[in-house]
Amino acid sequence: MSIELRKHIEEITPVSDDEFDYILSHFRKKKLKKHQFLVQENNEVLNDHYVIKGLLKAYYTNDEGKEHILQFAMENWWVTDYQAHFKKEKATINIDCLEDCEILCLSLENREKLCSELQKIEHFFRIKSNFGYVALQRRILSLLDKDAKGRYEQLMELYPTLLQRVPKTILASYLGVSRETLSRLS
Amino acid sequence: MSIELRKHIEEITPVSDDEFDYILSHFRKKKLKKHQFLVQENNEVLNDHYVIKGLLKAYYTNDEGKEHILQFAMENWWVTDYQAHFKKEKATINIDCLEDCEILCLSLENREKLCSELQKIEHFFRIKSNFGYVALQRRILSLLDKDAKGRYEQLMELYPTLLQRVPKTILASYLGVSRETLSRLS
Repeated sequence: MSIELRKHIEEITPVSDDEFDYILSHFRKKKLKKHQFLVQENNEVLNDHYVIKGLLKAYYTNDEGKEHILQFAMENWWVTDYQAHFKKEKATINIDCLEDCEILCLSLENREKLCSELQKIEHFFRIKSNFGYVALQRRILSLLDKDAKGRYEQLMELYPTLLQRVPKTILASYLGVSRETLSRLS
Repeated sequence: MSIELRKHIEEITPVSDDEFDYILSHFRKKKLKKHQFLVQENNEVLNDHYVIKGLLKAYYTNDEGKEHILQFAMENWWVTDYQAHFKKEKATINIDCLEDCEILCLSLENREKLCSELQKIEHFFRIKSNFGYVALQRRILSLLDKDAKGRYEQLMELYPTLLQRVPKTILASYLGVSRETLSRLS
């Protein structure tokens, strides 16, 4: 059932059966239906979320009602409003489900508890965070440097399965291009 | 001399005198002149760099020779080509000095050694990386959502001293706007 999480952790550090059971006991499982919200603007963001199954989008809505997609999340990805979560502020983004989802929730308290008790978990999250930082830098360069076609091709190269699962209108929003531009590309 | 680094670490975790001396022994000090390169495209990136004094810019040059600023770094900031550094690849960006600089270099091997020997250092780098991730997400939203004026105002609010030290042409490149647009704003 949570074999995915164990495999995911063990890509960075091995854990024993007992350790994994202990780690898993700090997560809470949650099922959500398509269109349901995982995080809502102005609410507290107590948890980070590991996706076992499904697809979500994290997006910001500006004062004019325009949506900007901050990130997608599918199997083995983590997603929350990190600014709100780490700094204990209110959410400024929404996260909702593009498909039915199964996720594992980890509270900030439980994350810090696990990290202080098990150095290998602190190590795991440090390495994950480093990789996340690199991915965001790559996205910033893509936004600064690439046109619609370049961004689309990069996304297709990095996450081919994502393109098949995300509706075109939402994909266009992620790439910062119009639906019409995207249709010409894909 | 390296009181800055100690203060910087102790914003997240206290360290004893002995611990700090041990930590510092893994860093190598380096002085660079204005215009000198810290990281050059196509080279290996053995070190991460903590800035004691000075100002640097990290930038990507595309096939047409256009420069995009990925980040600035000044006192108490860290800077390297993180993708190349963490993944042991060749650099795809350049980092050069906008002022004379004093930095402390930490190799990936020494970082991993320190992290495995001292959990508080693993903790320090995890928390730093989390904050870095949040800052990059904020920049992505700024690029997606804000116009030139909005980006300029946000930068002014977050890093007022940076604006006084960075030449306007370079600031315009960071914001992704023309020099003329920036002149109308500032």
